Amino acid sequence: MYRTCTCGELNIAHVGKEVTLSGWLQRSRDLGGMTFIDLRDRYGITQLVFNMETNAELCEKARKLGREYVLQVKGLVAERSSKNNKIPTGEIEIIVSELTVLNSAKVPPFTIEDNSDGGDDLRMRYRYLDLRRNPIRKNLELRHNMSILIRNYLNTLNFIEIETPFLIKSTPEGARDFVVPSRMNPGEFYALPQSPQQYKQLLMVSGFDRYFQIVRCFRDEDLRADRQPEFTQIDCEMSFVEQEDVLNTFESLVKFLFKELKNIEFDSFPRMSYADAMKYYGCDKPDTRFGMKFVEINDVAKGKGFGIFDNANLIAGINAEGCAEYTRKQLDELTDFVKRPQVGATGLVYIKYNADGSFKSSVDKFYSQDDLKVIANAFEAKPGDLMLVLCGDEDKTRKALCELRLEMGTRLGLRDNTKFSPLWVVDFPLLEWDEETQRFYAKHHPFTSPKPEDENFLDTPAEWGKIRANAYDMVINGVEVGGGSIRIHDRDLQNKMFHTLGFSDEEAQNQFGFLMNAFEYGAPPHGGLAFGFDRMCAVFSGVDSIRDFIAFPKNNSGRDVMSGSPSPIAQAQLDELFIDLREINTEK
Amino acid sequence: MYRTCTCGELNIAHVGKEVTLSGWLQRSRDLGGMTFIDLRDRYGITQLVFNMETNAELCEKARKLGREYVLQVKGLVAERSSKNNKIPTGEIEIIVSELTVLNSAKVPPFTIEDNSDGGDDLRMRYRYLDLRRNPIRKNLELRHNMSILIRNYLNTLNFIEIETPFLIKSTPEGARDFVVPSRMNPGEFYALPQSPQQYKQLLMVSGFDRYFQIVRCFRDEDLRADRQPEFTQIDCEMSFVEQEDVLNTFESLVKFLFKELKNIEFDSFPRMSYADAMKYYGCDKPDTRFGMKFVEINDVAKGKGFGIFDNANLIAGINAEGCAEYTRKQLDELTDFVKRPQVGATGLVYIKYNADGSFKSSVDKFYSQDDLKVIANAFEAKPGDLMLVLCGDEDKTRKALCELRLEMGTRLGLRDNTKFSPLWVVDFPLLEWDEETQRFYAKHHPFTSPKPEDENFLDTPAEWGKIRANAYDMVINGVEVGGGSIRIHDRDLQNKMFHTLGFSDEEAQNQFGFLMNAFEYGAPPHGGLAFGFDRMCAVFSGVDSIRDFIAFPKNNSGRDVMSGSPSPIAQAQLDELFIDLREINTEK
Repeated sequence: MYRTCTCGELNIAHVGKEVTLSGWLQRSRDLGGMTFIDLRDRYGITQLVFNMETNAELCEKARKLGREYVLQVKGLVAERSSKNNKIPTGEIEIIVSELTVLNSAKVPPFTIEDNSDGGDDLRMRYRYLDLRRNPIRKNLELRHNMSILIRNYLNTLNFIEIETPFLIKSTPEGARDFVVPSRMNPGEFYALPQSPQQYKQLLMVSGFDRYFQIVRCFRDEDLRADRQPEFTQIDCEMSFVEQEDVLNTFESLVKFLFKELKNIEFDSFPRMSYADAMKYYGCDKPDTRFGMKFVEINDVAKGKGFGIFDNANLIAGINAEGCAEYTRKQLDELTDFVKRPQVGATGLVYIKYNADGSFKSSVDKFYSQDDLKVIANAFEAKPGDLMLVLCGDEDKTRKALCELRLEMGTRLGLRDNTKFSPLWVVDFPLLEWDEETQRFYAKHHPFTSPKPEDENFLDTPAEWGKIRANAYDMVINGVEVGGGSIRIHDRDLQNKMFHTLGFSDEEAQNQFGFLMNAFEYGAPPHGGLAFGFDRMCAVFSGVDSIRDFIAFPKNNSGRDVMSGSPSPIAQAQLDELFIDLREINTEK
Repeated sequence: MYRTCTCGELNIAHVGKEVTLSGWLQRSRDLGGMTFIDLRDRYGITQLVFNMETNAELCEKARKLGREYVLQVKGLVAERSSKNNKIPTGEIEIIVSELTVLNSAKVPPFTIEDNSDGGDDLRMRYRYLDLRRNPIRKNLELRHNMSILIRNYLNTLNFIEIETPFLIKSTPEGARDFVVPSRMNPGEFYALPQSPQQYKQLLMVSGFDRYFQIVRCFRDEDLRADRQPEFTQIDCEMSFVEQEDVLNTFESLVKFLFKELKNIEFDSFPRMSYADAMKYYGCDKPDTRFGMKFVEINDVAKGKGFGIFDNANLIAGINAEGCAEYTRKQLDELTDFVKRPQVGATGLVYIKYNADGSFKSSVDKFYSQDDLKVIANAFEAKPGDLMLVLCGDEDKTRKALCELRLEMGTRLGLRDNTKFSPLWVVDFPLLEWDEETQRFYAKHHPFTSPKPEDENFLDTPAEWGKIRANAYDMVINGVEVGGGSIRIHDRDLQNKMFHTLGFSDEEAQNQFGFLMNAFEYGAPPHGGLAFGFDRMCAVFSGVDSIRDFIAFPKNNSGRDVMSGSPSPIAQAQLDELFIDLREINTEK
């Protein structure tokens, strides 16, 4: 038996007990007559003592051990003379009588500490060592705990987890599929699922009523920062439901998770229309931990001779409370910020509402103190506040102001990562116009149902942009953690939808045939959603990056630098698959 | 709101209540003045009543509805005059006041009943309808319940579920990988995991101590009956353990599952050595629901002038209790059975121990009644028993006798699928000689550790076949449901093992490099196992085939006939992947 206890469980109550422990050497301190070793495992750290006077040979042996050696020790639990109240085992130590080296270790390429000295690349190459560090281990423990809670919660609500296939049919619509050549069917390919969307809808046709699955999904996209080619969804679907049923079910789930994992309770779980989200926050995933809502001032800012405002479609801004004392340098920084290409504004107008009630703005030439007072009233600003105003084309202005709002939130410490503000964004548009291909695309996917009251717009192409969908996103702290919709279950409406999207009957049949066919045999009304599990873990931890919530992530080129994947395969394998590689122009 | 209750929950206590139900029309009976409809959902069936006298219009409407229509009804719960005590809702019916057709349905291609009239092919093509049938639904519910129980059980034992990657490095050793071309790294491929073996060992190096994962795995093998290209494993690994720790942990899990799911308790969970399994049952996964162990009779059967026995390496048989009355026809059937190519014996010798104490055998010419009595004693046979004997080459004889034993078990009704007999088969050989390639292969995998007492044999190639491994399989009712081993964690021993398997250092580094490297940084002693989850579900249900425990299985050509996968992909996709398809000789 390698151990009688773990390194996290011994305390003052165990003094006098003979124990066996196994673990890793975290650090060792040689104090002349005594040597102390911190022995680490997943559960904690226990201090080992070796004494030159009582057992010189053993103590000499202990001194030769390096960091990360794997040790087994037998010894007696004793009370420490100098206690450490920061760790649960801090009142005791083990007076070691036997020491076995279970395995030696090379010196790790970075320190196995909470704040490691290893850079990202090195940590990824030696991910198995990086995973020894507390913060990463705790992330994966959180992930595990969350998955257990989710499964049990959904199980009590009669959701049944059903595994859907990974080797599925490739469909050209949507993001790019990863494909898998079939050896048994040469020239043909499977695709890896981007989501189990069609299968979960089939399961509703099958009468499973309430389905979920925590499931890996795949998307062969060019990886922006913090995207992974494989990611995990909490995928859910329900039958005989309307939008409110889905929202209520899953806001309860998220409330339950916050209560269990963070001991946080939410009084409310607001719903905001997509139109309001765009109007007041400039994006469909507002960070509602703080206010600073957009204020539109076209009516009070135009007509005063300031051409830039007069020619703008939209003049809008935010009120940064208590920032009237901002210096020229700070204001210049903000101007530089909004002018960045990613933000895209051409300039920034500020209006300081001084403590004495006077105003100072970058457009004083055009606006009297009275004019500025009227504008300040529109902002509901108080003395001491700073109004920041952008203008121009509607969409661009909103997008830039959204970035400025988030930047100000960060600067003012309003984006506290221990605070959580969840909401539903609802009433998304059904269709989205694409300038490049000059056609409408499904904003969500082609099975999303329109709001019944907007259905009649489907007959009038000029109205298509106005149609709202039974689609919803859950947003927490400005991050979209999940989204879904009520699906179309009526075949006529589905056909109309496909025509709207420019599909011929053949195209629709070819791409979605098996689902379309299934719908002819009694499809119930149904809807659902999917959460991004990696993202959800990160949001719960108040962290931006998902990478440290994935045990073995890939880098931005889709590479696993630890295992060296992807890699070339043998010619024999290509032969079996009946495929050839093309020459790759390496000069490119 | 589509429903206030499900179709499974109303009973006599609800009489007088106004309810709304939604579901599928299971069947409808028109009795002139009255029409009855069975409304079905996942939870049960509720009877609806329509009365021509009280509401002719509604009743007429109800009569026009076809099987599998999706309906919503409002009505009053009433006590039935003729009750059905076979279903929980059998005491009540709903007097319908409102009827909405939520969706119509074409006539299904087979009946949605427990015993459907649909053949396998048709059922697979319309799997979404097949899944509406009770038996299949119950299989998937069992699977879900089992997964919830497993996760919670392992969670209480501090196992943590960690998701490992699906896009991994391809390794040539072992079964054939499915590969995934990388668009971002042209000419390179990912592989889909055959198991997370290397990752779970890395997680032990990382100190996660106890890991599990219910995870999809992939093998591109020619599919024998009841194999699937994608299958699910319950994959587990533990640190600081010896073989007994692993066996105890997972036999407890399986006992727990039997108790929870079948209310069955096991007094014992025997361990049988591989050598004994081969000696007494002729295979490494004995069905121990019944005895009929092999008896070797070389010493008492040789030297009596029967050349076939005299020249055989092994003469062995089984005693079929109470079968002395078998007819000539029955014995001929058994002879035909053992002569089948899959069984491979050249003939069958029988010895009847008649009720009167006399013997009748197919070798009476060579054996006196006294000789046969001696043989009968070896079998511990009683009057009324039938001894069935095979002989020849050792391995072939055992294999054939194993099949004969199972056949007799089936004929005698000893393989009762409501009875469960689990055991561990332990002490597997470490290495297996392959005649074709004239080399030893790892019986389990190259990381399996030898028994410490057999380790010294590694230095002597002539002894390699004798080395026993710390490897074990769990067998239930003759089915291998899981298997694993204690791994090598010592680098020198690992190197020796690779040399034994004929790997050069480069080959070992190329194929297993990242794991080998990780082992240099402090690998703990560790071991684990994996259960076949699909198989486990089938065994628990007393069913041979795994196919109906998988929502969307593939056929023996790896095809999903429902979705039409695999399928050709667009040229543009091939271009992006820098691969070409070869001409396929369609005449072949």
